[in-house]
Amino acid sequence: MSKNLLIVSTSTIHGGKYLDYMEEDIKAFFNGCTEIVFIPYARPGGISHDEYTAIARKKFSELGINVKGVHEFANPVEAINNAQGVFTGGGNTFVLLNSLYENKLIDAIRQRVSNGMPYMGTSAGSNITGLTINTTNDMPIVYPPTFEALQLVPFNINPHYLDPDPNSKHMGETRETRIKEFHHFNTQPVVGLREGSWLHVQDNSITLKGEHTARIFRKGENPTEFSKTDDLSFLLA
Amino acid sequence: MSKNLLIVSTSTIHGGKYLDYMEEDIKAFFNGCTEIVFIPYARPGGISHDEYTAIARKKFSELGINVKGVHEFANPVEAINNAQGVFTGGGNTFVLLNSLYENKLIDAIRQRVSNGMPYMGTSAGSNITGLTINTTNDMPIVYPPTFEALQLVPFNINPHYLDPDPNSKHMGETRETRIKEFHHFNTQPVVGLREGSWLHVQDNSITLKGEHTARIFRKGENPTEFSKTDDLSFLLA
Repeated sequence: MSKNLLIVSTSTIHGGKYLDYMEEDIKAFFNGCTEIVFIPYARPGGISHDEYTAIARKKFSELGINVKGVHEFANPVEAINNAQGVFTGGGNTFVLLNSLYENKLIDAIRQRVSNGMPYMGTSAGSNITGLTINTTNDMPIVYPPTFEALQLVPFNINPHYLDPDPNSKHMGETRETRIKEFHHFNTQPVVGLREGSWLHVQDNSITLKGEHTARIFRKGENPTEFSKTDDLSFLLA
Repeated sequence: MSKNLLIVSTSTIHGGKYLDYMEEDIKAFFNGCTEIVFIPYARPGGISHDEYTAIARKKFSELGINVKGVHEFANPVEAINNAQGVFTGGGNTFVLLNSLYENKLIDAIRQRVSNGMPYMGTSAGSNITGLTINTTNDMPIVYPPTFEALQLVPFNINPHYLDPDPNSKHMGETRETRIKEFHHFNTQPVVGLREGSWLHVQDNSITLKGEHTARIFRKGENPTEFSKTDDLSFLLA
């Protein structure tokens, strides 16, 4: 069983263009793919599947990779079964997960990924690689049949991880408080991925990439910062 | 049919103490009540029901009102049925709603409120007065049986409403973007209540209180700011 995942905090960093900051890594990741299937279900800002797919298509055409939207296929399950690679874009995690269940894609993606098909997700597309979507930052604008996600990795993701702002006068919870509350009800580790960071999971190895350390939360322990050179294999144990 | 609700954005404003900023209004609202039932289910920061109730008890004792936690009763439904008034504290909206369903309190609260029992909620306790919890800001750390809430008012609440920060470099969605996305899938208006603001609903009247305007989002329209002197009765129509 092989596995090849790119779990990305955000598609776009401040001041940059869509996926530009990690273009070389994406190219290397999808090396050998001439066409990938894009999952536009998360619909950022409520845009249509066609509109969202056009954005991904434009970017990937610069990398010499053709993009087809999964919604363009008569049978989405077959689209996944035949895909050379899959990229799931960000947006709303609840909308995304709900659509994956509606289209019966959960098992199809799981199976292909466990057989080595490269899967890349940004933001909401990263959230769903974890055990559940219980650690998304998104607004729950639709009610999915479950919060259980693709479970491609045995932990949860918190993308767009934000450090507390010492100058904030806002009384809403910090991200860290929210994740601590999560651990009152759940046991799996949570990886807080700052914008500009991503994880590369290959078989039984996991590597942090990008410009930041990652903050990892484990139930009953203080959160810890991990850098690119640290061993993260405990996350896959 | 009468109705008396205080729908509050936050219990505590920056630099202030628990409920201090609206103490006089709370006193007037619960006028005639010698004891109220506190619902601590939202468990902010994961604290216990006892710990949370102690915080509310301390504050309300200063107002001459006794507080009993709903969890202190052998039969929570009877506790609500016999309550002079109810106050639901903030914390995590998913945990709160889930516990209300587990304890079969939804119908009990609805019925007592429709018969005039005063109900006050802060933050998560406000979210649940709306049609659904689809516009909460909270992390979905547990999976409730539905997102349908108490439906004491025919709209949704977004407490701790935050204006976009023009200096932010964070790429996560603004609150306004999130609520716009909500309206791709839902039709009810959303009242964005800034910290320090609250709504007082009495029978068929609704009044904005506190120091800010409220931002109201209606499907297919631009969001609009409403002040204390504006007519908000369309929200109850």
